[in-house]
Amino acid sequence: MPQAPVAINLADRLAQFSDLWSQKKVADLNDYEVKLAKLKGEFVWHTHEDTDELFLVISGRLTIQLRDGDVVLGPGELFVVPRGVEHCPVADEETAILLLEPAGTLNTGDAGGPRTKAAEVLD
Amino acid sequence: MPQAPVAINLADRLAQFSDLWSQKKVADLNDYEVKLAKLKGEFVWHTHEDTDELFLVISGRLTIQLRDGDVVLGPGELFVVPRGVEHCPVADEETAILLLEPAGTLNTGDAGGPRTKAAEVLD
Repeated sequence: MPQAPVAINLADRLAQFSDLWSQKKVADLNDYEVKLAKLKGEFVWHTHEDTDELFLVISGRLTIQLRDGDVVLGPGELFVVPRGVEHCPVADEETAILLLEPAGTLNTGDAGGPRTKAAEVLD
Repeated sequence: MPQAPVAINLADRLAQFSDLWSQKKVADLNDYEVKLAKLKGEFVWHTHEDTDELFLVISGRLTIQLRDGDVVLGPGELFVVPRGVEHCPVADEETAILLLEPAGTLNTGDAGGPRTKAAEVLD
């Protein structure tokens, strides 16, 4: 097996970083990546034309703004933004999330710009 | 969008069923399925030759037996069983998990047998 058979504790992994809006990969699932991130404030409106994107809130509160209305997620709540649907995450308080999407999916999707950042591997 | 833009609350969804070893789909992510299940006791040894399989424990405690040793998961812990790796889940107490894998992945993989059961949709 490419990785040692040990559990990935999400709280422990979240304690390993503090930078906001920076996705940290903790596991691979086929050609998908399981990533963690800490968010506070508002991101940028963007679209992923080629993929759905799963958000699961671990702590805090995340609002995923959509052009049709907002989806508000607390701990233990998830939402899948369908491909092609413009969205903009915003968090009033610091919020920890798990993201799941294909490897190489850019955080800013089609929008690009200064907040674009590739995922980092969290060992 | 194919689904109404509402959060999926995992605890609420888990409260909707009580049968053990029966996967309930709560969301699609491209051609993957997000499923919930309640487990107690031991499953069967099996392998998914074509896909990795993600287990995230929500409550309880899950042991994923591998031929190389056991991985024990508590709440907030995840593990990806790599494709081709034989495994057998076992839970001493009732345990709730989130599973993520490609649509159509059978619960018993290559083993088949009487515990094979297709995932159900949890509305």
